[in-house]
Parts: sequence; structure tokens; C-alpha cells
Amino acid sequence: MADEAAFQFLHNEVIQYIYKSAESGETDNGRHIAKLENMGFRVGQGLIERLTKDTARFKDELDIMKFVCKDFWTCVFKKQIDNLRTNHQGIYVLQDNKFRLLSQLSAGKQYLEQAPKYLSFSCGLVRGALSSLGVKSIVTAEVSIMPACKFQIMIQKM
Amino acid sequence: MADEAAFQFLHNEVIQYIYKSAESGETDNGRHIAKLENMGFRVGQGLIERLTKDTARFKDELDIMKFVCKDFWTCVFKKQIDNLRTNHQGIYVLQDNKFRLLSQLSAGKQYLEQAPKYLSFSCGLVRGALSSLGVKSIVTAEVSIMPACKFQIMIQKM
Repeated sequence: MADEAAFQFLHNEVIQYIYKSAESGETDNGRHIAKLENMGFRVGQGLIERLTKDTARFKDELDIMKFVCKDFWTCVFKKQIDNLRTNHQGIYVLQDNKFRLLSQLSAGKQYLEQAPKYLSFSCGLVRGALSSLGVKSIVTAEVSIMPACKFQIMIQKM
Repeated sequence: MADEAAFQFLHNEVIQYIYKSAESGETDNGRHIAKLENMGFRVGQGLIERLTKDTARFKDELDIMKFVCKDFWTCVFKKQIDNLRTNHQGIYVLQDNKFRLLSQLSAGKQYLEQAPKYLSFSCGLVRGALSSLGVKSIVTAEVSIMPACKFQIMIQKM
């Protein structure tokens, strides 16, 4: 499917670009991650606004999460989240068994340490989407076996 | 259609990011344009390789151009080029009457001077695609009335 590849290729280029601009003095990995996360945040905000333009009001937090797992995820990653779990106390875990932005990397352990680069944009994406729906959160991601991936969302009570 | 918006939003963020990184000392507009063009080039290379994986060999240059106007453009911009003209001496003009990356900007003259920012990535995209098909070119873009846009391709004979 080349049809949705433009986003994927551009995403890769952005990562390359941000890491290469390290030549201008910034060698701090944390800053690169933060930049990617911020980009994702704004893209997520824009996308969710467009996606929810004509949807009914959400019942509760769980309802919002379901929307993110289904509609939002399908819009960006062309598949749904495979598993959504929650402790009903503000922590949600979204599991994607074949995360699209990792599927181009080798499935072995070889590139496991590169994975965070490829996840921070998407963490921001989720955080941005939730933020536009009035849910403040911290989103982290974790990979144990590529290309499966878990996103953990911690809701910040206000 | 929110479905293809991820690419569009990410493209906007990249432009923002590159222009904002001017705070680190680079105020040269030409360099920003070149960076965007280079990103586009590599995205174009990747996309065309994927798109042409199973297509028959192209007959000639015009055949390649037609592929870029139809399949390639549809893949990235969800519509075909509206008009393809050539002088049969290595110059091609591709007209898109509603160019997707400009359609978010106001149609008036107000933002006309901002247009080049939003076109350089796409110029690179075309140049990269052609380059992977063995055609070396120079690609420029021109806007007279938003969101219509003309891409001029000059083939470099080798």
C-alpha cells in the first residue's frame, strides 16, 4: 500500500532532519525527543478537531479513549488499536500489535534502541488529541518486541 | 476528509519547525527552502520506488510524466494533475487547479508571498520521483491565484 506512505516517509525524514541538525551544536537526545513530541502534539490537535467536527458529545473519559483507539488511530495509522486496558483510575494502556511507524524497521532486537525516536511523535499525537478534547495527560510508549508497541496514558486530574 | 489530513498537518509542522529553527542563527530563507526541497526529494524517491514496484517499464519521458501526473499525484495529493503541457523539448508544465497543500491557506492575495514555503517540499517530491526513474530535472513552482499552482519541470540532459 503506497497510498498512505507519504505520511510515513515524511515522518522518517523529520526524524532524520531533527537528529542531523545536531551538527549545529545540539547533541542532547532529550531535546530531539521533545521536539518530535511537540510536533506530534500540534498535529494531534489539528487532526482531532477535524475528526470530531460532526461527532456527538462524548459521555466520559472511556468514551474518548475508545474514539482515540478506533477513529483517530484508523485515521492516522490505518488500523485500530488492538487492545485497550484501564485500571479505572486514570491509567490507560493502548496496545498496537503492528505499529505502522515501526513496521519498516527490522523486527529483531537490533534496532530496539532506535525505537524511542520513532515513537515520540506518536506520543505527542495522542497527548495533543486528548488535550483538544479537554483531557490533560502524560503519554509514554514502550516496545518489547517490534513492531508491537504499548502506549501508556496517565490522565492528569485538574 | 480527515483521513488524509495527517500528511498535511505534518507538512505544516515541518515548515513551522524549519522556519522557527531560525532562532539558532539561520535567517537565510534560501536555506530553509533548500532543506524542505531536500526532504521532499527523499520522500519522492521512496514513494516512487514503492509505487512503481509492479508497473511495466516506461516507454519514454512523456510516459513517465503521465505516471507522475496520475498515479504519483493521486497517491500524495488525492487528485490528479489537471493539465499537463510540454514543448517536446524537455520542458513540462503540470497544473494543479486546487493544490492540496495550498488549499488550507486563504484564496486571496494576502498570503501569496507565503506560498513558496508551501511549494518547495513538493518541488523536491517531483524531482526525487523523477530522479529515481532516471530523469534528472530542475523543478520550480509558481502560484498566481491560490490554490491553483503550476510546476515547471526542466529535464537536464545527461
